Amino acid sequence: MRDKINLGEKLAMLDRPYVPGIVGYLNDYKLVVVKILGEFVWHKHDETDDFFFVLRGQITIQLRDRDVHLQAGELFVVPRGVEHCPKADEEAEVLLIEPRDTINTGDAGGELTADPLEL
Amino acid sequence: MRDKINLGEKLAMLDRPYVPGIVGYLNDYKLVVVKILGEFVWHKHDETDDFFFVLRGQITIQLRDRDVHLQAGELFVVPRGVEHCPKADEEAEVLLIEPRDTINTGDAGGELTADPLEL
Repeated sequence: MRDKINLGEKLAMLDRPYVPGIVGYLNDYKLVVVKILGEFVWHKHDETDDFFFVLRGQITIQLRDRDVHLQAGELFVVPRGVEHCPKADEEAEVLLIEPRDTINTGDAGGELTADPLEL
Repeated sequence: MRDKINLGEKLAMLDRPYVPGIVGYLNDYKLVVVKILGEFVWHKHDETDDFFFVLRGQITIQLRDRDVHLQAGELFVVPRGVEHCPKADEEAEVLLIEPRDTINTGDAGGELTADPLEL
């Protein structure tokens, strides 16, 4: 039987921003924690919405027509197919929930593409 | 376009425990906040896992063979088909993520069965 998941403990195991860590699963979705610092890469996911919940700090999800500023306790769901680029001026911690086969950089690829760690 | 969601503001709109409030959607899942106080009802969901993330306070998810104690920042996914009964001695606040057609009391029914509010 699975155990409970303490997100702070899991995040402490990540030593670099933008390296996703899987902490659990919900049906065919993965539960992922990630540290955000600096700018990610513009990308979109044509097959799925993209769930961001800020656990610590604050981030900005840049959309092509506006910025969405999120602080701890706030979440935003980027609709499928919508280009976005997360960024943070200071390190922030985020919970992501997405289908198991979702690639972190979506359609963009590039050097920030990363297989998630199993934490 | 959807806006960001501040979970504390949404929870402030709920005046009773165990009344679920929908704050958003992720594909075919609903994002639900709920206040927990006292004991819920033993039930299970045969078709889906059940995601609990504690935002404030602490709760216990009773399983038939053990108790899972969760505090703010901790989450637990009850596997599908596993009987469980949440409870809290003091009011706590929780984020739930579940398929849109999930009934809060699962197979149990009864007086705590509630259509979620759209917050």
